[in-house]
Amino acid sequence: MRTSIATVSLSGGLTEKLTAAARAGFDGVEIFENDLLASPLGPEEIRARCADLGLSIDLYQPMRDIEAVPPEEFGRNLRRAEHKFRLMQRLGADTVLVCSSVSPLAVDDDALAALQLRRLAELADGFGIRVAYEALAWGRHVSTYDHAWRIVEAADHPALGTCLDSFHILARGSDPKDLEGIADIPGEKIFFLQLADAPLMAMDVLQWSRHYRCFPGQGGFDLAGLLGHVIRAGYRGPLSLEVFNDVFRQAEAGPTAVDALRSLLVLQESAGLTEPPAPVVPTGIAFAELTGPDVEPVSELLEALGFARTARHRSKPVDLWQQGEARVLLNTGPGARRDGTRLAAVGLESPDPAGAARRAESLLAPVLPRRRAPEDVPLDAVAAPDGTELFFCATGRPGLPSWTSDFEPVGHPAPATGGVRRIDHLALTQPWHQFDEAALFHRSVLGLGAQESVDVADPYGLLRSRAVTNADGSVRIALGVGPAPSADDGGRAQHIALATDDLVTAARRFRAAGGRLLTIPANYYDDLAARYEFADGELETLRGLGILYDRDAGGAFRHCYTETVGRVFFELVQRDEGYRGYGAGNAPVRLAAQHVRRPGR
Amino acid sequence: MRTSIATVSLSGGLTEKLTAAARAGFDGVEIFENDLLASPLGPEEIRARCADLGLSIDLYQPMRDIEAVPPEEFGRNLRRAEHKFRLMQRLGADTVLVCSSVSPLAVDDDALAALQLRRLAELADGFGIRVAYEALAWGRHVSTYDHAWRIVEAADHPALGTCLDSFHILARGSDPKDLEGIADIPGEKIFFLQLADAPLMAMDVLQWSRHYRCFPGQGGFDLAGLLGHVIRAGYRGPLSLEVFNDVFRQAEAGPTAVDALRSLLVLQESAGLTEPPAPVVPTGIAFAELTGPDVEPVSELLEALGFARTARHRSKPVDLWQQGEARVLLNTGPGARRDGTRLAAVGLESPDPAGAARRAESLLAPVLPRRRAPEDVPLDAVAAPDGTELFFCATGRPGLPSWTSDFEPVGHPAPATGGVRRIDHLALTQPWHQFDEAALFHRSVLGLGAQESVDVADPYGLLRSRAVTNADGSVRIALGVGPAPSADDGGRAQHIALATDDLVTAARRFRAAGGRLLTIPANYYDDLAARYEFADGELETLRGLGILYDRDAGGAFRHCYTETVGRVFFELVQRDEGYRGYGAGNAPVRLAAQHVRRPGR
Repeated sequence: MRTSIATVSLSGGLTEKLTAAARAGFDGVEIFENDLLASPLGPEEIRARCADLGLSIDLYQPMRDIEAVPPEEFGRNLRRAEHKFRLMQRLGADTVLVCSSVSPLAVDDDALAALQLRRLAELADGFGIRVAYEALAWGRHVSTYDHAWRIVEAADHPALGTCLDSFHILARGSDPKDLEGIADIPGEKIFFLQLADAPLMAMDVLQWSRHYRCFPGQGGFDLAGLLGHVIRAGYRGPLSLEVFNDVFRQAEAGPTAVDALRSLLVLQESAGLTEPPAPVVPTGIAFAELTGPDVEPVSELLEALGFARTARHRSKPVDLWQQGEARVLLNTGPGARRDGTRLAAVGLESPDPAGAARRAESLLAPVLPRRRAPEDVPLDAVAAPDGTELFFCATGRPGLPSWTSDFEPVGHPAPATGGVRRIDHLALTQPWHQFDEAALFHRSVLGLGAQESVDVADPYGLLRSRAVTNADGSVRIALGVGPAPSADDGGRAQHIALATDDLVTAARRFRAAGGRLLTIPANYYDDLAARYEFADGELETLRGLGILYDRDAGGAFRHCYTETVGRVFFELVQRDEGYRGYGAGNAPVRLAAQHVRRPGR
Repeated sequence: MRTSIATVSLSGGLTEKLTAAARAGFDGVEIFENDLLASPLGPEEIRARCADLGLSIDLYQPMRDIEAVPPEEFGRNLRRAEHKFRLMQRLGADTVLVCSSVSPLAVDDDALAALQLRRLAELADGFGIRVAYEALAWGRHVSTYDHAWRIVEAADHPALGTCLDSFHILARGSDPKDLEGIADIPGEKIFFLQLADAPLMAMDVLQWSRHYRCFPGQGGFDLAGLLGHVIRAGYRGPLSLEVFNDVFRQAEAGPTAVDALRSLLVLQESAGLTEPPAPVVPTGIAFAELTGPDVEPVSELLEALGFARTARHRSKPVDLWQQGEARVLLNTGPGARRDGTRLAAVGLESPDPAGAARRAESLLAPVLPRRRAPEDVPLDAVAAPDGTELFFCATGRPGLPSWTSDFEPVGHPAPATGGVRRIDHLALTQPWHQFDEAALFHRSVLGLGAQESVDVADPYGLLRSRAVTNADGSVRIALGVGPAPSADDGGRAQHIALATDDLVTAARRFRAAGGRLLTIPANYYDDLAARYEFADGELETLRGLGILYDRDAGGAFRHCYTETVGRVFFELVQRDEGYRGYGAGNAPVRLAAQHVRRPGR
């Protein structure tokens, strides 16, 4: 179906918004009146700009407080409407959105509403314009889609139809049964469909609508279900996003527009309207790649953790460090930035790397070059919203080229001794304005499942974290976001969590090898003693090593932290099989301890 | 009364929080458990630190999910409690907060709750500790203060009392009558009083409580009314702030603690408990002072606006520019920062400058030195939360020294010709984390009234603005805040609005004198034509000059803008006497036009 986006969903001036929408690949736009008013371009210039960009103007919006008012007020409203119809002619827009009235002058009289909307439609018809009447969830007398439709039906004019808006329909917490009436509306009378998702929140619906809408799949509404009803009604117009969101207002328009279009692609797939390449769920983490100008501090850390440097890339300054199934690449090549060591890429073990890349590409993920040097094994890779490179790869599996073929074994590697079995999870910090998008990206592009988002108190602000995982937990990525755009390094840290079956031994080995574990306050252990009963001596052992402890219905979780190098630190974890979390309850203690280690703050 | 603050209300590590509370002048603190857990200091060290700082530890908090549970669960709870009582002994805290249970294990049985709380109190008593039981607004079975009190009364133990929390009481939207029961609780059984305000919002009460609480006077609750009831009950314990707020978590602890204590001082005055020096409401704006390294561009702007340079400071590089009653000082002295021209100080016409300063000082406003050079007229001044210097002064009034005496007239000043009568209003940009505090400061310290806060859409994010005024509108200050900490200059601009009786003539004169007015898009005027009827030719005149138009029930408002110099621009306004606003509806158009002028963005 055709895709469209309301200009209010993107930041910047009108021309920036139009450019971003066109570049992302939208077919059309809704022009939000305030964006036009503030633009130095006249209506004809905007029309030409849209034509140049290949964008249709699908809707002009909104017109407010028109119907069910006393005659003299309605006269003024018609005068105002006529001005706008003339403007729309200059603009080349043929459909206008009329929201149900919130005016204190409006009366509760459907017959009057229908009569006046018919008059409006007659006027519009003379300009070749169609009127799409929509129920605002907080409309004074008309607040449901079926009520709006009854009025449109009674008005009975070919230039009058209804506009359905997913927010206004779903924010009222409608029973799915309430939506069945949509399919009874003649498709040709649904003039327009506006789509927005929203997190499920108990709050004033107007504030919710104006500040917290988000793109389909980023919130909690069943938009695919709603879309199904609208399609069954016979609607064939554009799918258009109208999203008022305080964060998107501040974010760059270009990336936001791409995220927006991706959300519509995913929605159409969910509703069974399209069949893009199926997701190829990764089956493990093949490697984590760290880049930095100086690998020595990380190398020392890896050595103390029991990793062995086992191989070196044939043509690039990249070392492979390995222990069990945990593999870490250290890259000092040109990608290494001056701001210190960071987690730059993740290798995802994929049963079908090429298929995974096709999926990603179909959902607008930026595809990275397949091979970097002529002799390298071709590797499919895309960029995640935070810029992390995701490689779809295979590690020594029959029938698939192995990324490890690019590496030449080092003569006599030291044996890996740390007791680390594999990478338990990765924690990646997201740009603050793409937190919701990051979860949608990992869900839709990679086929991972998203857990609930949790708030975590850092001494200098709240952080949010949301994990995405595959079904067996062999891929776990915790997506985090700091408290504010200007957050310091605390909010930007990334980490690699390493799984061991015996954390106490692993932590002791690490220390014996010269590693330093994050110091956890004694008060924390006094509290543990109050909350849990431990086997004799265990609590003292945890205290002595700085091991944190958590428990949920499925089991226990023990974890401890190395110091931070650049933006990266390591976590050692021992996870009972049934434990689903990441020790979020301990995060405030860990974050405070990390701040203590940074007295410069 | 004694003042106290919960450590959760301030940002940073525990020692930072304690230091900030002590420096601001609090008598005591509530220790929030998580702050203790994350602290590297042991309980005895925290106790010693508090003693050194002169802080008492008034409460340890919180203990959760204790009461009305099955026996074996209660056994575990007592074990947990005993651990905490031992900790409190080491800490030197003698009162613990117990919140009404939210546990799914809790049963709706007041008698069981009373019995178990009595058992808890007996245990506490052995440690010399008192238990203060509080109803959470979202408690599973106990969610109102009177219900909690009935259970405490039934438990009937001297070591068990109740804790009243203004948020939990007022968030339930209680009828004022519902509060009358407070006075019936014996004062000695009210063990503690926690105070928090909150903006009036329709949202999930737990989220509201955890993220949006604010200091008394910053929100919409009638805390003085509540406090009256508590005092009548005979409560003589501390007034303690417990404020969970996402913004304060990120703000510096020091200034937040001062704002916090100021809010308690104002609250006590509002409740009739104290009589600080009365506010001296300013009667006009004596001057606005701009500082900058290079005054030439501003001087040119002032000249074009029709100002005349009439005098120069005797001992400092400060020029006085005047037109009608509008006075602007241009200062190139050492206060001038490199980041360009800014509005650094405001002279407030005061009937009693010394009294105004005493008021400000009593409310913790930083007092600035009274005279800068020995020969200068002594001037009382304080710093506002945004750092703006506020001078309480008199302009040539009998019996009071006039600040103008420090200025020597310039030989033959050009006559002022711009038609400007006086300063209509000043717009000051606040640090993003002190927006609510700024309004409280201006209300409480200066005795101004605060209007409602309004949201304004900038192309790159939402701004908020709130005006404070005196009764006759001769002092109007619009306090604004940008969309986010990292907001660019758009969010940092300040402006001086100049009142004229004939804006069209003033704007024409300005242009004829070489001034450039901000260009307003033609689309804006097409919209004006749709919304209002104008006298013949007026709309064309507005369009030709870039004059914006607004109207409310009281009259019309016409305004236009100069270009920006440094961080400052000027506005020319013509205000009908009854118009109360500032043209907020036009602000998105103005902001977009100002971004167009800054193509560097």
